[in-house]
Amino acid sequence: MSLDDVLARIDADLPDATDRLLDLLRIPSISTDPAFKTDCDRAADWLVADLQGLGIDASKRPTPGHPMVVGHVGDSGPHLLFYGHYDVQPVDPLDLWDNDPFDPQIEDTAKGRVIRGRGSSDDKGQLMTFVEALRAWKAVKGDWPCRITFFLEGEEESGSPSLVPFMKENAEELKTDIALICDTGLFESKTPAIVTMLRGLLGEELTVTGPTMDLHSGMYGGIAMNPIRVLSGIIASLHDDTGRITVPGFYDGVPELSDELEAQWQGLAFDHETFLGDVGLSQPAGEQDRTPLEMIWSRPTCDVNGIWGGYTGDGFKTVLPSKAHAKISFRLVGDQDPLAIRESFRQVVRDALPADYEVEFSGHGASQASGADTSGDMFEAARKALSDEWQIPAAYIGCGGSIPIAGHFQQILGTEPMLVGFGKDDDAIHSPNEKYDMESFHKGIRSWARILDALS
Amino acid sequence: MSLDDVLARIDADLPDATDRLLDLLRIPSISTDPAFKTDCDRAADWLVADLQGLGIDASKRPTPGHPMVVGHVGDSGPHLLFYGHYDVQPVDPLDLWDNDPFDPQIEDTAKGRVIRGRGSSDDKGQLMTFVEALRAWKAVKGDWPCRITFFLEGEEESGSPSLVPFMKENAEELKTDIALICDTGLFESKTPAIVTMLRGLLGEELTVTGPTMDLHSGMYGGIAMNPIRVLSGIIASLHDDTGRITVPGFYDGVPELSDELEAQWQGLAFDHETFLGDVGLSQPAGEQDRTPLEMIWSRPTCDVNGIWGGYTGDGFKTVLPSKAHAKISFRLVGDQDPLAIRESFRQVVRDALPADYEVEFSGHGASQASGADTSGDMFEAARKALSDEWQIPAAYIGCGGSIPIAGHFQQILGTEPMLVGFGKDDDAIHSPNEKYDMESFHKGIRSWARILDALS
Repeated sequence: MSLDDVLARIDADLPDATDRLLDLLRIPSISTDPAFKTDCDRAADWLVADLQGLGIDASKRPTPGHPMVVGHVGDSGPHLLFYGHYDVQPVDPLDLWDNDPFDPQIEDTAKGRVIRGRGSSDDKGQLMTFVEALRAWKAVKGDWPCRITFFLEGEEESGSPSLVPFMKENAEELKTDIALICDTGLFESKTPAIVTMLRGLLGEELTVTGPTMDLHSGMYGGIAMNPIRVLSGIIASLHDDTGRITVPGFYDGVPELSDELEAQWQGLAFDHETFLGDVGLSQPAGEQDRTPLEMIWSRPTCDVNGIWGGYTGDGFKTVLPSKAHAKISFRLVGDQDPLAIRESFRQVVRDALPADYEVEFSGHGASQASGADTSGDMFEAARKALSDEWQIPAAYIGCGGSIPIAGHFQQILGTEPMLVGFGKDDDAIHSPNEKYDMESFHKGIRSWARILDALS
Repeated sequence: MSLDDVLARIDADLPDATDRLLDLLRIPSISTDPAFKTDCDRAADWLVADLQGLGIDASKRPTPGHPMVVGHVGDSGPHLLFYGHYDVQPVDPLDLWDNDPFDPQIEDTAKGRVIRGRGSSDDKGQLMTFVEALRAWKAVKGDWPCRITFFLEGEEESGSPSLVPFMKENAEELKTDIALICDTGLFESKTPAIVTMLRGLLGEELTVTGPTMDLHSGMYGGIAMNPIRVLSGIIASLHDDTGRITVPGFYDGVPELSDELEAQWQGLAFDHETFLGDVGLSQPAGEQDRTPLEMIWSRPTCDVNGIWGGYTGDGFKTVLPSKAHAKISFRLVGDQDPLAIRESFRQVVRDALPADYEVEFSGHGASQASGADTSGDMFEAARKALSDEWQIPAAYIGCGGSIPIAGHFQQILGTEPMLVGFGKDDDAIHSPNEKYDMESFHKGIRSWARILDALS
């Protein structure tokens, strides 16, 4: 039996596959709210039963929080791991939902058929694309494409507190040739993509203190240096006129794009006007000599995420405050060393302090960028499979944010992560009326069948 | 009978004068708290009765808030107005008081005898220095030194909402040759002083808006300009490296000190190290080529009184906010025009905005500096009287903050204000355990007797 038979089976089985997904979506597995602890457990049980029904050796594995679902199947060929998560975001504000978030519906919309409900896109729908692909494969071929390990989490939406300890304790069991992660989307809702670059993150909170107490700006204004002015000066100095970040050594380890990737990204014809226009902007404001995609994927950044000091209530109070505070973060790429940058940044701040001033820092996370090594055959094989299914050339893309699980696979297990997903930009994940396009679900299942065929 | 007789009478009457003050201090005339409305009324009645007892035509005059006390006496000579206020600050936190704030006590401390209680310094004790001087004068001389109008307020600690309307409605009645205002202090707690320069105040609140919504700094960081960075850049640009304010036209109308005032201020030998040291600072941080006293009295300033934007709670949130806000104020001197500076400042901000950015302003007050015209004989006469009493040369000094009543006398009545007071820096006005030194009270009464003698 050929891949085409598997794809045909997927097409024929789509109604049943959809019913199974709806069944899973009915379980309100909100991981962050203790009131839903039993429901998280039920979702894990549902998955264990479904995998066992396929003949997979799956079980619920306890953690201090919600359980992991781990399963193994197959005994020859390359060893793939599949990661997804069965927990979902809270549903507040409930009154903005058109329907009960846990009574999922199939809806026909102007843009096509969608599966509506909490978790439909993030991540139960995506998770089930892989399960359904494997179900069809087994049904048609009577065997497994290769060795496969399932690793399904129930705490992704609440910070994954048990993830790293569990991976470390079970490293031998979870080590595979590659880790398939299905929690991302199509590029601009249409181009299949494998995320191969994830920016790292360095967070710093700082408090500058001048006078030991809040002062009256009439009495001390003009003779006492104002801490908000000091902090503003520091923030203003972090970028030069061309948009480059001025922290010494900051660009050490920042790589240039390969010619191949540059060509791929060129081919994506990123519509930055729409991307910015959606949020009321028009001009890319990063480094002058960089393309918009470089700005959000492959170049490091410095943003102020919060600032406060003095009187911030209604009306006016002529206070000359003692302190000013900011939360500043750096998105990192390539081999940038977060700890070296932290030290350099702190020195910049200390050097900028006027007489009598002090500064206190507290670090909030320091994670290096992660990039998948796409040089092996697997990445190119998967990319071709995706291109075949979607009839659009698939691309290796970046992701400006962090997906910590990707780095964990690399650092804890030494396994290369391959991030493939079928979500669309308008899926409203984390928001009311979350949906997953039937196209995403259907072609997602077919995509995995093709990828399994290509990798095995 | 001579001035010496009046001064001797003051010395002899000090115990009774103190008892009268204690009596007034027992009335909890907290103007800002409606629960004490009756008490404010009682304090006004007490003053009316005391002035009438002296033979002064005094009465309680209703306002929409607490009443004014107005009285007139004398029929020849120059016409002086005396202003003080009978209301007091709230007493919270009550547990930080060593005694009931409205059960005033005479205490002997290491620094001398003090009158302890709410309002002892601000302003009942100061107010009574003038009343007692006049009482002694009348007792010794049997007549009045000149024409005197009393104008006592009961809303000074709650923003004086009725003051300006009352002054406007009764302008003819309140117009005099000079307005004596007793609500200030000795310079550095030892040098008698007349405040002749008060800085004005221009308040501006601004909100800069970039993206139309808060963004994820992973997704948009690097391509979307951060509003906190924009606002910080604007704030940082408001001063140059020498500490001068860069707003175009800002220094128009800023006068240089007269040689005479410069000499007087030199003579004060201002101890800026202690002034700054009290609040944990050591370096005067104003314009490089200015003395510390100029920085706080005669030079204009720009301070940020508050700033906020993005995530300011515990932990970290990688938001790239839509908006950033600041409250900025300028202290003004000489003939600086607040409205012209407001326009110039707003233009500076608009010119500094990057593409796609907007700014909204809201003004919070725009008052010009006020300076007394000391060229007439009265100021020099009063200065000599104060020097004689305290045996230290009295000085014309500045005040960095605002005392709006001074400007009102000038603008509404065309009357020159003369600010004379005897408070000390450690009087703890507005704080628990407020006190007034017996020295301030006693020599304050004697000072007014000398000033009345000099002016009449």
